[in-house]
Amino acid sequence: MLIVGERINATNKRIAQAIQEKDADFIRKEAMAQAEAGADYIDVNAAPFREKEIEYLEWLFTILQEVSSKPLSIDTPDQKAAAAALKWHKGKAMINSITGEKEILSAFLPLLKEYKCNVVALCQDDSGIPTTLPDKLRVANQIIESLVGEGIELNNIYIDPLVQPISTDFKSALITLDTIEEIMSRHPGVHTICGISNVSFGLPSRRQINRNFTVLALQKGLDAAIIDPCDRELMANIITTNMLLGKDEYCANYLLAYRSGKV
Amino acid sequence: MLIVGERINATNKRIAQAIQEKDADFIRKEAMAQAEAGADYIDVNAAPFREKEIEYLEWLFTILQEVSSKPLSIDTPDQKAAAAALKWHKGKAMINSITGEKEILSAFLPLLKEYKCNVVALCQDDSGIPTTLPDKLRVANQIIESLVGEGIELNNIYIDPLVQPISTDFKSALITLDTIEEIMSRHPGVHTICGISNVSFGLPSRRQINRNFTVLALQKGLDAAIIDPCDRELMANIITTNMLLGKDEYCANYLLAYRSGKV
Repeated sequence: MLIVGERINATNKRIAQAIQEKDADFIRKEAMAQAEAGADYIDVNAAPFREKEIEYLEWLFTILQEVSSKPLSIDTPDQKAAAAALKWHKGKAMINSITGEKEILSAFLPLLKEYKCNVVALCQDDSGIPTTLPDKLRVANQIIESLVGEGIELNNIYIDPLVQPISTDFKSALITLDTIEEIMSRHPGVHTICGISNVSFGLPSRRQINRNFTVLALQKGLDAAIIDPCDRELMANIITTNMLLGKDEYCANYLLAYRSGKV
Repeated sequence: MLIVGERINATNKRIAQAIQEKDADFIRKEAMAQAEAGADYIDVNAAPFREKEIEYLEWLFTILQEVSSKPLSIDTPDQKAAAAALKWHKGKAMINSITGEKEILSAFLPLLKEYKCNVVALCQDDSGIPTTLPDKLRVANQIIESLVGEGIELNNIYIDPLVQPISTDFKSALITLDTIEEIMSRHPGVHTICGISNVSFGLPSRRQINRNFTVLALQKGLDAAIIDPCDRELMANIITTNMLLGKDEYCANYLLAYRSGKV
């Protein structure tokens, strides 16, 4: 499972403060902690600053690429910010995120073609955010077909079925799980990704819910997740579940994780 | 999910000692703790005592039925011990366990017919313990057909696919999970049950593995489990997973469990 570390996000007050104060040490520590905990990508979000977003992203990309070789996930809805960040990025970046909305697709497509980067595509189109399994699948199929039709490699596409809070609809997690399974079986080669923590919004003991949902989603085929890799128990669940799903020959990775104190 | 509490088992040294010393207080506390933690059945195993098994079972059944109204699971391979225990039992007992072996089936069938009790049937026949998905399904189908053909209600049958330690075959948990899914889809109305902790035998951090396996098995349709209900985190996982699988309207049971400190 590809792990995108979600901690450097300006919707978090402490992170927003560190960005505004250009507290490079704090930001670097956040990145290094996530890399050490097992993140494959470090997500970077400065979107709440709006007109200052690009300035802050440049600073963030500069300091982050000094301390870690982990590639970055550019977390912005703004095509201009994404374009700037892709220029600064070394290696294969991830764009987080586009949608199936026509205007968004056409704005981002040139970037996806030029940089051959990974892209998170939210299950959403001009008619809104679908909530039923057939509607989610219809939108996912349309997005995949549009992107592949434009020459984007399937292997670079990460479909996000958009996890809804289970507190507002108690069947919503089940629908998301079924959506993951269907997308993965209908489009071999494509990836699915979730911002896991949305599932627990509005409920107590959120980490308990996030951890169990991750295990369930792994079984359905989810192969990427935007999570806090510093949640040690969540990472232990991912390692253990991979073993239980027959993906860890001789339990070698599990035993290694145990010996290094990760399980 | 039907929870069978596994703690009163004479293969555990402390329990064996309490039985030999007729330490009723200790045994009662074990039963009450499991009932309070959410056990639906209390499993009772005195099989290691062999010639004293029936004597000990009588004592155990007497003291257990004084302190708790929870029905008991009679954990013995011996038809005579099961026959005796069924006589002492009030309410609907569970026999744990029979197999598909012809001799075992014919020995236990009269008891199952007379008492209309629940029965755990291990996926095993005269040719041994199957290890592949097709073989496990073949044996499960044969057992279900034999029992139903003799008039046993599907609703009283709990098929145990026999969880193998993942330490000896890293694909074995996956096979068990697929077996559960297939049995539940092919035989609507039948139950599946697992002795969960076998999966982690021989590995460190066993509870971590047991907890994740339970979540995965629930998603595949497992509706009964032989576990330690006093493992608070395992029970929290079961409650949370039920919610995530869309079985907890308005998240009411999860919120209740949270307020009572169970999640």
